[in-house]
Amino acid sequence: MSASLSSLKRILIGEPFPTHREIHERLDKVRALAIFASDPISSNAYATEAIMSVLLIMGTGALNLTLPLALGVMALVLLVVFSYIQTILHYPDGGGAYTVTKDNLGRNPALFAGAALLIDYVLTVSVSVSAGIRAVTSAVPWLLPYSIFLALLAIFILTMINLRGVRESGTIFAIPTYLFILGVIITVVLGLARFAGLFGLTPPVPPELPPHVELETVGNVSNWLFLWLVLRAFAAGCTALTGIEAISNGVQAFKPPEAKNAAKTMVAMGLIAMILFGGITYVATHIGLVPYEEESILSQMARSVTEGLPGGGFLYYWVQLFTMLILILAANTGYQDFPRLSSFLAHDGFMPRWMTNRGDRLVYNYGIITLAAISSIVVVIFRADEIAMLPLYALGVMLCFTLSQASMFKLMGRIAHLKPGEKMKTHVTEIHYEKGTWWKRPLNGIGAIVTGIVLVILILTKFTEGAWAVVIIIPILVWGFHRTNEHYAAVAKTLSLQDFNMAELHTIADVVIVPIAGVHKGTLQALRYAKRFSQDVRAVYINTNEEVHQRILRRWHEIGEITEGIHLVVIPTDFRDILTPLVEYIDQVNDVEFANQTITVVVPEFVPDAVPARILHNQTALLLRERLRHHGDVVIIDVPFQVHG
Amino acid sequence: MSASLSSLKRILIGEPFPTHREIHERLDKVRALAIFASDPISSNAYATEAIMSVLLIMGTGALNLTLPLALGVMALVLLVVFSYIQTILHYPDGGGAYTVTKDNLGRNPALFAGAALLIDYVLTVSVSVSAGIRAVTSAVPWLLPYSIFLALLAIFILTMINLRGVRESGTIFAIPTYLFILGVIITVVLGLARFAGLFGLTPPVPPELPPHVELETVGNVSNWLFLWLVLRAFAAGCTALTGIEAISNGVQAFKPPEAKNAAKTMVAMGLIAMILFGGITYVATHIGLVPYEEESILSQMARSVTEGLPGGGFLYYWVQLFTMLILILAANTGYQDFPRLSSFLAHDGFMPRWMTNRGDRLVYNYGIITLAAISSIVVVIFRADEIAMLPLYALGVMLCFTLSQASMFKLMGRIAHLKPGEKMKTHVTEIHYEKGTWWKRPLNGIGAIVTGIVLVILILTKFTEGAWAVVIIIPILVWGFHRTNEHYAAVAKTLSLQDFNMAELHTIADVVIVPIAGVHKGTLQALRYAKRFSQDVRAVYINTNEEVHQRILRRWHEIGEITEGIHLVVIPTDFRDILTPLVEYIDQVNDVEFANQTITVVVPEFVPDAVPARILHNQTALLLRERLRHHGDVVIIDVPFQVHG
Repeated sequence: MSASLSSLKRILIGEPFPTHREIHERLDKVRALAIFASDPISSNAYATEAIMSVLLIMGTGALNLTLPLALGVMALVLLVVFSYIQTILHYPDGGGAYTVTKDNLGRNPALFAGAALLIDYVLTVSVSVSAGIRAVTSAVPWLLPYSIFLALLAIFILTMINLRGVRESGTIFAIPTYLFILGVIITVVLGLARFAGLFGLTPPVPPELPPHVELETVGNVSNWLFLWLVLRAFAAGCTALTGIEAISNGVQAFKPPEAKNAAKTMVAMGLIAMILFGGITYVATHIGLVPYEEESILSQMARSVTEGLPGGGFLYYWVQLFTMLILILAANTGYQDFPRLSSFLAHDGFMPRWMTNRGDRLVYNYGIITLAAISSIVVVIFRADEIAMLPLYALGVMLCFTLSQASMFKLMGRIAHLKPGEKMKTHVTEIHYEKGTWWKRPLNGIGAIVTGIVLVILILTKFTEGAWAVVIIIPILVWGFHRTNEHYAAVAKTLSLQDFNMAELHTIADVVIVPIAGVHKGTLQALRYAKRFSQDVRAVYINTNEEVHQRILRRWHEIGEITEGIHLVVIPTDFRDILTPLVEYIDQVNDVEFANQTITVVVPEFVPDAVPARILHNQTALLLRERLRHHGDVVIIDVPFQVHG
Repeated sequence: MSASLSSLKRILIGEPFPTHREIHERLDKVRALAIFASDPISSNAYATEAIMSVLLIMGTGALNLTLPLALGVMALVLLVVFSYIQTILHYPDGGGAYTVTKDNLGRNPALFAGAALLIDYVLTVSVSVSAGIRAVTSAVPWLLPYSIFLALLAIFILTMINLRGVRESGTIFAIPTYLFILGVIITVVLGLARFAGLFGLTPPVPPELPPHVELETVGNVSNWLFLWLVLRAFAAGCTALTGIEAISNGVQAFKPPEAKNAAKTMVAMGLIAMILFGGITYVATHIGLVPYEEESILSQMARSVTEGLPGGGFLYYWVQLFTMLILILAANTGYQDFPRLSSFLAHDGFMPRWMTNRGDRLVYNYGIITLAAISSIVVVIFRADEIAMLPLYALGVMLCFTLSQASMFKLMGRIAHLKPGEKMKTHVTEIHYEKGTWWKRPLNGIGAIVTGIVLVILILTKFTEGAWAVVIIIPILVWGFHRTNEHYAAVAKTLSLQDFNMAELHTIADVVIVPIAGVHKGTLQALRYAKRFSQDVRAVYINTNEEVHQRILRRWHEIGEITEGIHLVVIPTDFRDILTPLVEYIDQVNDVEFANQTITVVVPEFVPDAVPARILHNQTALLLRERLRHHGDVVIIDVPFQVHG
């Protein structure tokens, strides 16, 4: 059975890679862009709609503000991209917001950044997969009742692909990402061409709103409300920022020179994001599109632009298909960064150490599986309804931007004090003199302040819709990080050989206790093993049944060759629970007879051929181990006895 | 934590009973009737309606057949009760259909009887609890969305009460059972008094059917269809038989003389069942009641009979309330017999042996918990809809009646051959000469044939509605019984000391392998333990990390006092999986160096104070044990090292 499990694993995951192959598994820039940028690129494609939906509360006239607000968001995107490029170049070993915050603002802010990002990556997976499956079920309505199942299936498939390794998943995910970008850019360019009247084309016409769509507006608004709504629209547009940090956490996934390649990819990602966001916003607002629930702005735009053109239907479906795919693939950004970030935290002792272990295909498979499990739970809790999850989303990433840009602001301050040629070590990196800190520093500062304001707006507007959960969970996670760290520190202290003294080790008492329930080959094997290393072997029978007791006594003397010299202790009990008197006897031997020494218990154990047959045997050894686990000075020996059939 | 769990258990279940108290925990006849008869008595109360519902297909005129058919069913009930009294008297050690079939028809028919009964007991619990909860949610409609939860809660409460012991649960369940019987009997007597015109009472009038109830009838039917429908009505009425066998499985729960007390209780139960069934049928048909979905015949009857009488409303609600309670309590019959029957099967090696163990309160608690778990699953699968479960129900018990009566037919044949004063041993009991076999035997034969016919009718009419599942599961269970038995037989053979030869025991090689991942106090403790009983101790480090390797080498020489004489084996690997090379090394030592000898592996194990902290450590010891479990000749020793914090 274990052989077939292992070959199933080989089929799903592939053959293991040797450790030295690690460098071959690194990503080139083309794959890296696809693998890290699916989330930021898809969020850019939707940011326009997010702004419009808020503005629409004030009527269609307010939609005029879309383009100016989008320009503001784009400026912020540029600021953040710039800040992260700085981070990557100054922290070439990777780690993103967590590392840069740890180095500049200290441990606690860094842990908050880490917790916020982990939560956001879980939500990236849950939201993207649910949104992708909603697109599928909109097209094929009879699948609707299975949406939770389909979302879990999508998570399972993504998990398998990611367990196959970074490079392989990069290859699989590259094609749909680039085809999506291509489709949207062609649509935008075509839209611009129609407005310009090139080749005799006519400007696109907005589709008629379906008759049932009623635009509810508040009409005239006070100045304060107006300001509030504009801020909210701006905050909503900041969805374009999600995923920008992805590359900074994954620098070590790039081929060398890692930092340079990562920075270049970051520039490419920023450019593509700007083109998509700017292009969509410009074309959509120029056509005069109005957002409504049933059809996204992107779909409306593709429909208007391709209307009446030969081959336009093909382009429209192209955009639709790859929109659906990139929605699901956006989840992959979470799969890339959650395991890496966990491994950073685990390496520093804030998460279980085994999260730093890499699996057969050189990926952090425990992180991947943890992410898959938690996001599956989120999908089930929210019944694959991404609209309900959205209020929880984007808080974490905004907290992170604020912290990382504040960190860069501080770092730039330290660099500004260096003289030409001078260099200096921080906790985790080395900084050199560089030019331009006088303008770089304020940019980071402005970025931090703006993203901080956006964070506050997001919390205020979404608190009651679910954001409260994130506000509660982040500090709980940070508390867990601290507890974990304390535990590891205590363990290290206990195990340390500093000032080691032989007397600290327990001495080993010359006594062995063998609990028996009968006299048969299994028991004899165990008794013989026990006799081999102690003069004082005690077979203990808890007498619940006089008949069995007499049978044991009879056989005990028959097999004198082995039982000779072994003391048979019979403890009568008038209850059916045999563990309690057994543990009491062991306690007494351990605490009274051989205080402060290590004693040994030998447990005869049946090992049936087939795993299911275990259920047919009492799990006394297992239960005894559990009961004795707090005894640091009881050694338990399982002597297996193979039974066939 | 384990202390608070244990005190919670004490509160829910009570203090443990010593084994010698077993006899005090036995049931007197009054409690026993309540505990075993809740199922048969409640099913008698519904049998009339079951007959009428089938007859109604042929129109209200056909309802005239209700009374004659009910008389037929009553005759069958008497036959079965008679047969079971004979079983109890001839098999005073209890065991019911399983034991009597094993003794007379052989192992396989007995296992079929056992499997059928176990399934029926599970369904008894699921059906009764769901029906009871339906009665609750009909009265309190806002509870409807919680019906699955409420049904599971009811199962949990029943489980706790049953874990408290037989006598205690008997006391708790006696009152509602007797109050139900009393209420129905008063209603029937009152009905008869009104028909007789005693005290100037007027005959009861049937309630008007609600306007929306349309009686769909087939009108004129052919002779064959008529016969088929009458047979189906008869089979439906045989629901009155379910639960009759309960006492026969529970003879050992009675105070001594067990068989006599059980037989007397059986007679009382038969009488009460007859009075209820006959009385309800007579009064209901005389009033001219017509069954319809929203209101049961019992409720209609109680309403008609109490109509216009002072205090009548009180009697009506009395009957309603205790009907609801007895529905839930009927589940208790399953709780009594499933664990006992499981223990019989386990005692014969057909189910896990530990099902014969009795818990703190002298009940078969593994059987109780198994029943609770399986019936909870059934409740969830069928979403607490007992109507959907009914087609699966009653098949098993009918198969059982057929087999047990056929067995008694055979046994009576053997008794008939005995001469006065003569006696004879069968496999499990002793039979004596007795009078009257000439009439007892044919009664058993007729009973077997009639219940056999009913079984066939039930399978035919309910097959597609779900009975197929039972038809499939019974042979699967029987197959499982056989597999279990074969396993135990193989184990017994392997362990047996018959013709025992010392050479059969493995010799123990003088070698100990200690896998290490570092050099610290935990490792030293393990190495020191290993050195104590072998000259050839080998510390094995799987080298995945050269840095760690060098650190180990450095420390190894620092702690020469302990590491002296120990061979440090370093196995380089270019993969991250350390278990595979470790197991390969152990295999090689075990198969090549020390072929056919037992070798020893000492595993240093961290034991953190708190259970959750385990997640922070690699479970290498656990995984290694799993990987080595098929090696009958590798002994694994855990040397615990307590870590605080």
